[in-house]
Amino acid sequence: MQQTTSVSTLWAHFVPVAEIPIGFDTGRMSRLDRYVVREVRSVRGEAPPALRRGTGLARLESEAPIRFFNNGYKESGGFLLHGAVQHLHYTGRGEQTELKTLSRPELAASVETTAVLIPIGKSPGWWAMSQDERQILFQKTARHEGHFGIGRKYADRIFRRLYHTRYIDPAAPYDFLTYFEFNEADAPDFRKMISELRDVKSNPEWLYVDFEYEVWMTKLSLSAEPSS
Amino acid sequence: MQQTTSVSTLWAHFVPVAEIPIGFDTGRMSRLDRYVVREVRSVRGEAPPALRRGTGLARLESEAPIRFFNNGYKESGGFLLHGAVQHLHYTGRGEQTELKTLSRPELAASVETTAVLIPIGKSPGWWAMSQDERQILFQKTARHEGHFGIGRKYADRIFRRLYHTRYIDPAAPYDFLTYFEFNEADAPDFRKMISELRDVKSNPEWLYVDFEYEVWMTKLSLSAEPSS
Repeated sequence: MQQTTSVSTLWAHFVPVAEIPIGFDTGRMSRLDRYVVREVRSVRGEAPPALRRGTGLARLESEAPIRFFNNGYKESGGFLLHGAVQHLHYTGRGEQTELKTLSRPELAASVETTAVLIPIGKSPGWWAMSQDERQILFQKTARHEGHFGIGRKYADRIFRRLYHTRYIDPAAPYDFLTYFEFNEADAPDFRKMISELRDVKSNPEWLYVDFEYEVWMTKLSLSAEPSS
Repeated sequence: MQQTTSVSTLWAHFVPVAEIPIGFDTGRMSRLDRYVVREVRSVRGEAPPALRRGTGLARLESEAPIRFFNNGYKESGGFLLHGAVQHLHYTGRGEQTELKTLSRPELAASVETTAVLIPIGKSPGWWAMSQDERQILFQKTARHEGHFGIGRKYADRIFRRLYHTRYIDPAAPYDFLTYFEFNEADAPDFRKMISELRDVKSNPEWLYVDFEYEVWMTKLSLSAEPSS
């Protein structure tokens, strides 16, 4: 049987370092990163209680999904946030080419490297719209700057990656994991960017966001011990 | 924790009736249909060997995915074909409104009701395209009729449903399950439709289809016994 579907698909799993089973074969992972959580900020909806200042977090990327403790949340306080990189759903060829040249690559681990994870959920109204109705909300028009217009201004200093969760884990309260990295010196710009994205006058897409919280972290080198 | 993502999501599981565990609670399902396979036709790639003339097949639809025997294929000959209805990825508001009026609803089970399941896989080149590049291939242009143009002509007599699999089961050799129902009297029209969809001059989208086989079935009433 031919295998045609796994090319360039990448799953990401954010789990507490303490919850990774002893003997877990990280060699199967295409990538492993570690973080320490500095702050969790609720915007709409709640983060898992065990996700808080001092939590050591790992991001495991792999070509196939991994199951930790039956997914989702665990009574003992473990949790899994997960999603997959997918093909582009709204980006046109022009934007894709421009962003490829412009975009900041992923940063090396460092005490100066800040990573922010924002799980986001969109309302039923969003999912009921047709493709063209959703598409227009991303674009720059006479009336609004839109997601693309806002994002473009920051793409050279803020690395971003989008993981999709909606159809992978229907029980998750979020539809996407949005992930960012930047030098701590650019944190004011990052705050400016998310505040512009949340302003429904410049970005009406956000009218449909009904779940989000921010997880501010430092990206640690793999040999470092997280503070706690 | 708020639950925002499961609205209108529907999972479908096509499994041999003989593989449904005794005592399996079908009451949890939002829908259960039964079929007997009349013919399996390979187009590109192979169907599971146990899927053949006489196989009794069930379609179970539910609000959350169900796991049968570790998914995929089973050495004993069991198999699972599964996917989820998702939001619309290419249909614009105009087409959506037109199709809503035009489209044939699902048919009642009957010896005259033919159902055809076609698992479809698309090539890496498809998934690497930007949204606008994929979008244009669905639409009617001066040069081609396109998927929408072809489908519209048959929508009043052929019921269709699309399940997505690509990011739900990365090991599956298909990306989608396309499912159709019609009166057996309309079978010649159905054959005409799929032959037009496969003609890359009228529908260049099909240049990117690299896996498909057809499963022709009769939709049985739930009390009927499949012939074997």
